Amino acid sequence: MTNNNNLVASRRALLKKGAALAAGMGTLMVTGQAQAKANCTPAPQKFDEVFDIIVVGSGFAGMSAAVQAAEEGAKVLVIDKMPVFGGNSTINGGAMAVAGSELQAKEGVNDSIELMVSDMLKSGRGMNDVNMLKLVCNGTSESAKWLESYGTVWKPFVQHFGGHSVPRVLQTRESSGAGIIRPLIKAAEKIGVTMYKQTKLESFIQDDDQRVIGVNVKSQYFFPKERTGSQRTLGARKGVIMATGGFGRDIDFRQMQQPKLTSELDSTNHPGATAGALKQMMLIGANPIHLDQIQLGPWSSPDEKGFGTASQFNTAATYQNGIVVDARTGERFFNELADRKARADAIMTRRDEQGKPVYPIGLTNAKGAAKAQTLAWGMKYDVIKKADTLEQLAKEYGIPADKLKAQVAQWNQFVRDGEDKQFGRPLMQAFELTEGPWYAVRMWPKVHYCMGGVRVNTQSEVLHLVSDKPIAGLYAAGEATGGIHGASRLGACAVAEGVVTGRNAARSAAAASAISLKQA
Amino acid sequence: MTNNNNLVASRRALLKKGAALAAGMGTLMVTGQAQAKANCTPAPQKFDEVFDIIVVGSGFAGMSAAVQAAEEGAKVLVIDKMPVFGGNSTINGGAMAVAGSELQAKEGVNDSIELMVSDMLKSGRGMNDVNMLKLVCNGTSESAKWLESYGTVWKPFVQHFGGHSVPRVLQTRESSGAGIIRPLIKAAEKIGVTMYKQTKLESFIQDDDQRVIGVNVKSQYFFPKERTGSQRTLGARKGVIMATGGFGRDIDFRQMQQPKLTSELDSTNHPGATAGALKQMMLIGANPIHLDQIQLGPWSSPDEKGFGTASQFNTAATYQNGIVVDARTGERFFNELADRKARADAIMTRRDEQGKPVYPIGLTNAKGAAKAQTLAWGMKYDVIKKADTLEQLAKEYGIPADKLKAQVAQWNQFVRDGEDKQFGRPLMQAFELTEGPWYAVRMWPKVHYCMGGVRVNTQSEVLHLVSDKPIAGLYAAGEATGGIHGASRLGACAVAEGVVTGRNAARSAAAASAISLKQA
Repeated sequence: MTNNNNLVASRRALLKKGAALAAGMGTLMVTGQAQAKANCTPAPQKFDEVFDIIVVGSGFAGMSAAVQAAEEGAKVLVIDKMPVFGGNSTINGGAMAVAGSELQAKEGVNDSIELMVSDMLKSGRGMNDVNMLKLVCNGTSESAKWLESYGTVWKPFVQHFGGHSVPRVLQTRESSGAGIIRPLIKAAEKIGVTMYKQTKLESFIQDDDQRVIGVNVKSQYFFPKERTGSQRTLGARKGVIMATGGFGRDIDFRQMQQPKLTSELDSTNHPGATAGALKQMMLIGANPIHLDQIQLGPWSSPDEKGFGTASQFNTAATYQNGIVVDARTGERFFNELADRKARADAIMTRRDEQGKPVYPIGLTNAKGAAKAQTLAWGMKYDVIKKADTLEQLAKEYGIPADKLKAQVAQWNQFVRDGEDKQFGRPLMQAFELTEGPWYAVRMWPKVHYCMGGVRVNTQSEVLHLVSDKPIAGLYAAGEATGGIHGASRLGACAVAEGVVTGRNAARSAAAASAISLKQA
Repeated sequence: MTNNNNLVASRRALLKKGAALAAGMGTLMVTGQAQAKANCTPAPQKFDEVFDIIVVGSGFAGMSAAVQAAEEGAKVLVIDKMPVFGGNSTINGGAMAVAGSELQAKEGVNDSIELMVSDMLKSGRGMNDVNMLKLVCNGTSESAKWLESYGTVWKPFVQHFGGHSVPRVLQTRESSGAGIIRPLIKAAEKIGVTMYKQTKLESFIQDDDQRVIGVNVKSQYFFPKERTGSQRTLGARKGVIMATGGFGRDIDFRQMQQPKLTSELDSTNHPGATAGALKQMMLIGANPIHLDQIQLGPWSSPDEKGFGTASQFNTAATYQNGIVVDARTGERFFNELADRKARADAIMTRRDEQGKPVYPIGLTNAKGAAKAQTLAWGMKYDVIKKADTLEQLAKEYGIPADKLKAQVAQWNQFVRDGEDKQFGRPLMQAFELTEGPWYAVRMWPKVHYCMGGVRVNTQSEVLHLVSDKPIAGLYAAGEATGGIHGASRLGACAVAEGVVTGRNAARSAAAASAISLKQA
């Protein structure tokens, strides 16, 4: 038995004693049972360890919060329940929407914070929290530079992702969020941030004024084995920052809100993307916003698991520089640069008479695929197929060849005319598809992002359901929060949100008054 | 000071004493403050009053639960915070969707429970809780007869409401839910149910096992004055049934989920339709489903407040027996028998270049308006206008007269052909509009119904967020629950849901084991 377990045992004994004493007071207890209420466990007098700020989660929001808080002089701990740091952020595409970047200026793209806000509001169907949205968009340019200062390297060109009215996406050299997370972890270690893996938040510790003063955790926890790990108490003199992401892989929880998102629908998320931390916040009064707004990524393939190779290929190649067609007709059926919800909804209409998916085909040529870093891998795993001619490509997927050729010809005419007369796709970076070789993938959406989460104010304080005032000591950032994106997040806006709100939460927590906590 | 206040004072003194004792235990307390945590107040040893079942709310769900519970032999209390019983239910249209009624058989309408489930699933965009949906549809026929047995009188014909594939709507003689609520209140009083008005739920009382054993209320409460009323404790030996409705008039709360639903958008709900009870359920772990799914009623008029006269007129006259046109063009622009969401969304697209509403016009003739009981009132208040000819009607609303006449002629052709070639509206009960006088209203949606609410199982037990197991002693029914209707409720399905699930909750609570509680 560890010291920690000793403490737990001793606390249990005291609780029992306390309950017995309370029972002795007669009028206070109905049943006289010895067990204390789960949500009424008194705070420990001494914590196993005490920090200024505890950050829960180590993705974009968590690592940005940790480094920013340390910059502000706070003693910081980051915990993550998984055996590796980074969560979904290391397996995402590392693309960050930035309004008014130097790269945009260099390429002659006119952009503004107002335009980015307006694009996100449109995609969010007006359900967005406008104040939070402005805070994020306002912070993108400065935060992109802040990331650079810690070692992130952006590709030397700006990209045009779906739903954005102009090209405004920066992407890490690696086409991966690891190009952001790795430098931040290095910075955190250098600046003295403590980081614990396999340490799972169990519940919050609140004082008698309901202020969050720490967390009960399980250390040496092996996800997803709930019986592993040992109890520890961690104190937070200034606050706890929840950067705990979404619940895309929590199949039970997501199905309560969206019954159609069954286990048969794949997800791009890592296995740890569950609702546990969200539930703990809700249990102490956090206000859940838009929990049923769950985004399906429109760029994934049914021919591989998870994020895979198709997602980057489609984002950088077919959606920007190619077309997507119905496999039965060879015809386009939506604006390939619409927002994610519009695209995913469109794709999922392609079904046979029994309702089974008829996977649409995304295609482009060698010029269109030039910036797709996952091309070789995708071909290796037979997810992306190559064909020298459109006829061969059509044959590969059972598309009527004459119709496919006619569709490509029509597309090229739209590009020459400067107008997509069918679906109104923006053509700023479009070019004609004139020659092979051709590359293509089968497409079907996967669960990707939770727009929903807890309600926060512009200080990143978590607001209480009843009072709509901050729950003292509790902050949240990134995907764990709800409302910024409304009904549908635009691509590359999760990195923007995570970094900007993570740093925002850190500044708020660092500026909070510290309370005195004792360490065992 | 009342006895009640004396008790509160005495409890406070004991709490203080308890805290002091606990503080004496040393390791248990951090701050030693004398104030107990809000969510950790111990249950009182003696309640001001004790019942078997306490029903909170007195609409369709609440009164059905109360009468059913009393039928099962339980000692029942109904509380309502408002100065009158019935909530929204007395100001609604009293229409109940019933699958397989005798009236349908009489009129030769083929219907089934499966068809009703399928209609509601379609309207709900597949977001529905199918088990709860089946429970509701299964129960409609028997529950309609149960209401009759207590004195509800249905009109002698069946109606065809939007989104239902066949005519299946029964409506009270009065065209009002009062035709259901009044008989149920009479039945409740006769069978010995205690009923307290102006008695507001403040919070739940739970025992040490988290079982809900009663409620803290304010009696003599004058809505919405939070400083009025005196504290009382009410014990529930078997359970508390929450039939507390939706939050359509809680402008702050609805805007957190749907920022566009500002105070400028009217609601059909009574002022008491707030989120207070929902929040209290969430604070003890209830799982909120679909809170952002808030329905706009597509049949209301901007020319009067609230439900008004237009809602029944449009439901019974223009939508079933007339057409709705754009005031600028005289042209139809949607299927007038689509589901509510489709209709409200369509109407709200009618805006001028500045985004201001251009109110569409719903119109029919004398034959079409024959079953509109609010016609005379609507005309008296100048909400419904009458014209002898289509030319006069067009002039009244600034519609191009030739276009309106052409549209009516086209509609009549569709009716003769048996097919709405423009919008696919079902024509089972349709007839040609050949002669005046004509009646019309201006239309714009109003906040009407909350699809969202707490998650329940088919025993109407409220499920806990973390365990997904029942919160012992807590039941919910009607609009207070979430998931049955998915993204959009069909008309006449709220009465069905309220009555069926109210009775279902009552049967579950009545069958629960009773715990022993003491009365002061």
